[in-house]
Amino acid sequence: MTASPGAAMTGARESAAAELLDVGTERGARAALAHLVEAGELTLAALLEVHAAPEVLDRVLSDRSPQFGAARHRATRVDVTAAVGYAVRQGMSVLIPGDPQWPEGFTDLPEPPMCLWVHGPLELSRLRWAGVSIVGSRAATAYGRDIATSLAAGLGERGYAVVSGAAFGIDAAAHRGALAAARGGTVAVLAGGVDRPYPTAHASLLARLREEGAIVSESPPGWAPQRHRFLLRNRLIAALTLGTVVVEAGLRSGSLNTARHAAAIGRPVGVVPGPVTSMLSAGCHQAVRDGVAMLVTDVAEVVDLVGRIGDDAAARPSAPVTAQDRLSEGDQLVWAALPIRAATSIDALAFATGLAPGALLAALVRIELAGLAIRVGSDWKRARG
Amino acid sequence: MTASPGAAMTGARESAAAELLDVGTERGARAALAHLVEAGELTLAALLEVHAAPEVLDRVLSDRSPQFGAARHRATRVDVTAAVGYAVRQGMSVLIPGDPQWPEGFTDLPEPPMCLWVHGPLELSRLRWAGVSIVGSRAATAYGRDIATSLAAGLGERGYAVVSGAAFGIDAAAHRGALAAARGGTVAVLAGGVDRPYPTAHASLLARLREEGAIVSESPPGWAPQRHRFLLRNRLIAALTLGTVVVEAGLRSGSLNTARHAAAIGRPVGVVPGPVTSMLSAGCHQAVRDGVAMLVTDVAEVVDLVGRIGDDAAARPSAPVTAQDRLSEGDQLVWAALPIRAATSIDALAFATGLAPGALLAALVRIELAGLAIRVGSDWKRARG
Repeated sequence: MTASPGAAMTGARESAAAELLDVGTERGARAALAHLVEAGELTLAALLEVHAAPEVLDRVLSDRSPQFGAARHRATRVDVTAAVGYAVRQGMSVLIPGDPQWPEGFTDLPEPPMCLWVHGPLELSRLRWAGVSIVGSRAATAYGRDIATSLAAGLGERGYAVVSGAAFGIDAAAHRGALAAARGGTVAVLAGGVDRPYPTAHASLLARLREEGAIVSESPPGWAPQRHRFLLRNRLIAALTLGTVVVEAGLRSGSLNTARHAAAIGRPVGVVPGPVTSMLSAGCHQAVRDGVAMLVTDVAEVVDLVGRIGDDAAARPSAPVTAQDRLSEGDQLVWAALPIRAATSIDALAFATGLAPGALLAALVRIELAGLAIRVGSDWKRARG
Repeated sequence: MTASPGAAMTGARESAAAELLDVGTERGARAALAHLVEAGELTLAALLEVHAAPEVLDRVLSDRSPQFGAARHRATRVDVTAAVGYAVRQGMSVLIPGDPQWPEGFTDLPEPPMCLWVHGPLELSRLRWAGVSIVGSRAATAYGRDIATSLAAGLGERGYAVVSGAAFGIDAAAHRGALAAARGGTVAVLAGGVDRPYPTAHASLLARLREEGAIVSESPPGWAPQRHRFLLRNRLIAALTLGTVVVEAGLRSGSLNTARHAAAIGRPVGVVPGPVTSMLSAGCHQAVRDGVAMLVTDVAEVVDLVGRIGDDAAARPSAPVTAQDRLSEGDQLVWAALPIRAATSIDALAFATGLAPGALLAALVRIELAGLAIRVGSDWKRARG
């Protein structure tokens, strides 16, 4: 066993909390900016790509141009320090780019979140290699809900985490299926603050996700789930994972908006067909006809769909090829299961990946040769990227 | 009104009947060959492409090679003259290549029928320009049957004829939908002889098709609908029309065989999706995933699918370009409505095509300029190809 990983973790969390309250740090400045500027602001995203967040915050607060007038007005009305202190006391994490947990998929977004407010233990960095988004209509039929639940459960059994919203219908059915699986896990991306269960009827479902999976949002705690935030939220659902599956969607369903976001950043999109007499399948069928989505009818086809990320990434000239991309798909899943800080045993990895120890050890050696894993005695962890 | 078209028709029929009984004519020799050699014989098809049918018949009967041994054996047991005489007395037509009614689509088949036995008034040459094949499972669900009936009725209302088999399930539902429409018409392609209703439970449905549409087969009268003849029959369903729609099909359904035939000769294939929980939609979904078929959910999408024949034909370098190909799609439909022998009035054509007289006249003038229509007083007919 390795030396006190718990203590190291607590230390990291304490130092992150201290940063959060200091707007002179990247984390503190981004948390403050999230309170002042609405998500999806392209100018701000562009500034944050070039400048450190404390500089950007200074600029927003001192700028005389009308662009950030609303932010300066908000700064006079919101006690950012108090708001961030509340988040810390609630036990939220605030992730920023560069954190090992920062979702890798966000780098594909033209307007990545300033920071991500997180409740719950699920390792978000894993989603880009072993996560599938399942979305669909709130007014889903029993057929659609059954399919969403069984796809999510099947993905969970295969080690994939599920990402969705928290709405009635398909979203909730997907989370319930994922929670029923022994592995995988499930993540809800909210439009409002993670401390604000919405819809309120899903408060206990969200409480379970907070315990066993994760609830994430780019909206600061307390913020209301307003309509434009739902639309922006959809891009995060699309970007977090390997790909997105739409289970039921009318022709103007918001879940098609998520599917378009996914397609726009090169993620495969699957849709589940249904009776042509059901308007709730019309959006799914249209997406196939438009060539935006692949028709998928079971878990194996979903895995096949999202498993193609390697090919797709290779075909997209703008996509960066990472060292992990060069691993086989099976090895990527093993790599995703490796802890970042404290090394873990073959037995624990065998449990996490479902692989036999022999196959697992062979994979670990290949990953080690690729420079992506390190042996610590008989235990294993990721090598630093 | 033009002079006695009825008399001309009867004259043509009488001369065809006389030919039929004479194995020294192309028609008589082909009818005889159809009794001696099973359909789908590639060697025979190749011989008939190069040699006149009476020569081929001689060769088959005199050949000492084992290839046509079965045909020679059959010739000793079948009274071909009596069999053909029976067909004539039953009022069947026997079409051969070169007849104005010979289905143009058969030229795309590597093994076209030797001849086609036909019962019923529907003009078969029209199918390649205004016909859609609808096929699917015998064990169809109520959902599938409803969709087949409503697609066929909708196609009929738009002037498209429907082609199918005569099986239980989707086939029968499609014929019933087509019969319910005011226009269009419907054609059953049988595996056995056209005088042999199969399944017998559909005897009255087939009797109606004989009155209002057509029943066709490449098997001579009296022949049993054996399994291999069903598989060969499927290629005729595929070749007759603009394209094929599969409404419900299990993973090993014979209707997928028809769809593959259609795709192989460049005809668009559509499939209707259904619940993923229905094994009777699994074959349809698989065809979409395999890229063989387009997903279609209503009549407009079917028309859109088959309406693309112009593009597809242009893209297929091996497809012969006929004078009709150079007409616009709308003009092709008007051309298809033109009678071959006796000219007809603008009013009758307006009724048949659903076009306003002004638009119709404009189309007729374009078709005349293309050398494909002739004015007879104020009436119109096709020009001889």
